[in-house]
Amino acid sequence: MRDITPKYKDVSKWYQDVVVKAELADYSPVKGSMVIRPYGFALWESIQKFMDTFIKKAGVKNAYFPLFIPESYLHKEKEHVEGFSPQVAVVTFAGGEELKEKLVVRPTSETIMYEMYKQWFHSWRDLPVLINQWNNVVRWEKRTYLFLRTSEFLWQEGHCAHATHEDNWKTVLWAMNLYKKTYQNLMGVYGIVGKKSQSEKFAGGDNTLTYEIMMPDGKALQGCTSHDLGQNFAKAFNWTVLDQGGAPLYPYQNSWGFSTRSIGALILAHGDDDGLIMPPEIAPVQVVIVPIYKTENKDKVIECSRKIVKKLGSFRIELDLHDDETAGFKYNKWEMKGVPVRIEIGEKEVNDKSLTLVRRDTKEKIKIKESDLKSSLKKVLEEIQNNLFEKHKKTTEENTHQAKTYDEFKKIMKSTKGFIYAFWCENVDCEEKIKSETKATTRCLPLKAKKENGKCIYCGRKANYRWVFAQAY
Amino acid sequence: MRDITPKYKDVSKWYQDVVVKAELADYSPVKGSMVIRPYGFALWESIQKFMDTFIKKAGVKNAYFPLFIPESYLHKEKEHVEGFSPQVAVVTFAGGEELKEKLVVRPTSETIMYEMYKQWFHSWRDLPVLINQWNNVVRWEKRTYLFLRTSEFLWQEGHCAHATHEDNWKTVLWAMNLYKKTYQNLMGVYGIVGKKSQSEKFAGGDNTLTYEIMMPDGKALQGCTSHDLGQNFAKAFNWTVLDQGGAPLYPYQNSWGFSTRSIGALILAHGDDDGLIMPPEIAPVQVVIVPIYKTENKDKVIECSRKIVKKLGSFRIELDLHDDETAGFKYNKWEMKGVPVRIEIGEKEVNDKSLTLVRRDTKEKIKIKESDLKSSLKKVLEEIQNNLFEKHKKTTEENTHQAKTYDEFKKIMKSTKGFIYAFWCENVDCEEKIKSETKATTRCLPLKAKKENGKCIYCGRKANYRWVFAQAY
Repeated sequence: MRDITPKYKDVSKWYQDVVVKAELADYSPVKGSMVIRPYGFALWESIQKFMDTFIKKAGVKNAYFPLFIPESYLHKEKEHVEGFSPQVAVVTFAGGEELKEKLVVRPTSETIMYEMYKQWFHSWRDLPVLINQWNNVVRWEKRTYLFLRTSEFLWQEGHCAHATHEDNWKTVLWAMNLYKKTYQNLMGVYGIVGKKSQSEKFAGGDNTLTYEIMMPDGKALQGCTSHDLGQNFAKAFNWTVLDQGGAPLYPYQNSWGFSTRSIGALILAHGDDDGLIMPPEIAPVQVVIVPIYKTENKDKVIECSRKIVKKLGSFRIELDLHDDETAGFKYNKWEMKGVPVRIEIGEKEVNDKSLTLVRRDTKEKIKIKESDLKSSLKKVLEEIQNNLFEKHKKTTEENTHQAKTYDEFKKIMKSTKGFIYAFWCENVDCEEKIKSETKATTRCLPLKAKKENGKCIYCGRKANYRWVFAQAY
Repeated sequence: MRDITPKYKDVSKWYQDVVVKAELADYSPVKGSMVIRPYGFALWESIQKFMDTFIKKAGVKNAYFPLFIPESYLHKEKEHVEGFSPQVAVVTFAGGEELKEKLVVRPTSETIMYEMYKQWFHSWRDLPVLINQWNNVVRWEKRTYLFLRTSEFLWQEGHCAHATHEDNWKTVLWAMNLYKKTYQNLMGVYGIVGKKSQSEKFAGGDNTLTYEIMMPDGKALQGCTSHDLGQNFAKAFNWTVLDQGGAPLYPYQNSWGFSTRSIGALILAHGDDDGLIMPPEIAPVQVVIVPIYKTENKDKVIECSRKIVKKLGSFRIELDLHDDETAGFKYNKWEMKGVPVRIEIGEKEVNDKSLTLVRRDTKEKIKIKESDLKSSLKKVLEEIQNNLFEKHKKTTEENTHQAKTYDEFKKIMKSTKGFIYAFWCENVDCEEKIKSETKATTRCLPLKAKKENGKCIYCGRKANYRWVFAQAY
């Protein structure tokens, strides 16, 4: 009836149906890019508000660096240019003439920012540098996968610099902790925090932390990353500051980004066959009120509905007064949009001074007294928030496996997929072979992994840690 | 000593000195573009916060449309493409290959947005469409004039659509009123609201409202604009909705934008030979505390300073603890940055339980009792806010002239410049000749102008209104 593919029949088709029909986003006429519609953008605004408070509290200041980067800048760090070159969009013509130096539309801002850092900061007294920006970046895609893979996306990119590696690493961890908080407390999305392998880390960095999220099809989505860049960029840009003894020091740097891609994870983690399910903390609309009336009691019902809207002013609330839609149509519409709680108000509710809250996640109907409305609603929203997180955590755990042999590993990858913990010798050859034979890539070495005496599942050589493997989403 | 050009010696040199030295912004390596540093970006964040509250309250929703526009879209509205073509940056190469259709980096988003409106909205029930976006746009400049003229700038662009011209015009006015409030209440910048002439209006629109601001050199800065697009774009994109009777209707549209250029106006309106002067409402730092101590009383003075910072938690406050700078150096630095109030705390202040507030705008020193601190500070900040606006208003009025003859007009343009009220017949020939002979352009017809029986100052023909003329900044 709602014309969406059932979620577990074809996850990717379900996803595309839901994103478009719930009016989160749409396809732009330019292949690979997207339009974020108001309902979808409100999610990004929630994320921005949540994260920006913590960013400011940590003393990190927002700034804005230019969209266009001279092509030569990208070339200053060897691995960096190799990593990003195939994906860049290039401006060759501007202001009516051919440009002398081509301009790259930023795929990320390390190079342009660090050139400025070099000009601005000269002493240990200028450290730490704590700067973030909220902006748009472009990494070319030929096909659009709304939110998840688009040529242009929105994100924040934090770029800090410190005098010591220890302090630098602390910021890398702080950022990942902020991301974990955002995913877990705001978005109800569980994930594993860990370190990327050398082949999967950021182009030009030393180490990358990631938040790996289990998707409904058993694949893993990289939710966001925080990079320890070491002194690589400082050296590439020849940026030194004078340390306390007056000697030149290459600052240690980090960068960390969280993008609109996260909204894709949110959708995939919680939605069901009726559409989106929004965790109340991030939901643009937390409660929808659907008045049910006939001509003769319309005024009374609407008056009562308005009274309740007023009473619930501290919640994000919507009163659906469309008179060209039936109540049933409205239920479907708001379920599709994933609004956590629906309140239906008809003659009976007006007279009884009682209300029914309908939970989007469990479809449960909860009778309450009108006088308890605020406290009951608050409680129900908290329960939904917890339930969604716990549910996603449980699904993730149910799809997490330990593989003791490569045969077991292959069997899992052929059937349910999911996260597989397995010993790996950290040799890139084994990593590549496992990938080509099973499609599984190393997702991360969990931060809380303990050193063990193991043997690589592929080659049998010494392996200290169980890494997490999965097929990339 | 501070190494800035005196303001009235060379306004444009003063401006560039102040913007860079106060660390508001810097030149990007790409000619024509800029970097907005944290202190400058905090101003933009203040503006965003102030405006976005009103935007949301009016039911306008934020969204995000793509950076890249197919070149053919720009061509759909004839005047629009003529207006913007010379300024666009063009992506010809992306993802490792030449593009089949070139992509324009948005100079403004009418064309891409309205193509989507056409796809999304089909009925009178879908009107009004109330959408805004905060983003970056590119209009090529070969030379950078920080904030005021840069190839890339940040702004918001609101794009609404209505069923009737009346409703559409109401939104055009509402937006201009919001801008006026932002300039006057937040930024303390006076200006004249009026309608642009046909030659100065937005490319592709019917009418443009503007906020014209007097600059220290007697030139006028266009502070922001709100456009009545009529049905031009709906027709160009062939977008109709069904009206209540089932007949096709071309929606009436408007667009309105407020950009980082406004920060240039803020700086120019208030600053003096010692640097910036920030109106307290927008100031990133409202109060700076400079402790003055010797080794023997350092702890006591700093403890007292911290106590005061804590007490003033509701203000935006900075405690300057740099121990490599003298008090005098700090005074200069914070004056340069335009912080509205400075509090100096030394041995005497600690013992006397009294404090001195130093106003940035008047340099006045105000003795207060420590017990009155919060209320006194609040009052002083309000006074500074008012004073700056009144001062700018007064300067504007002192530089506003009535010209009865063209000779008078020319004399004013050769000496003090400023705003000139003069009858104009609204014929483009006269407008062009006045411009080429005097450099003065029509700035606007003030909204509160009354119809009169006048004669065009240039050609002597019938003229109904006194227009405002000035040289464009």
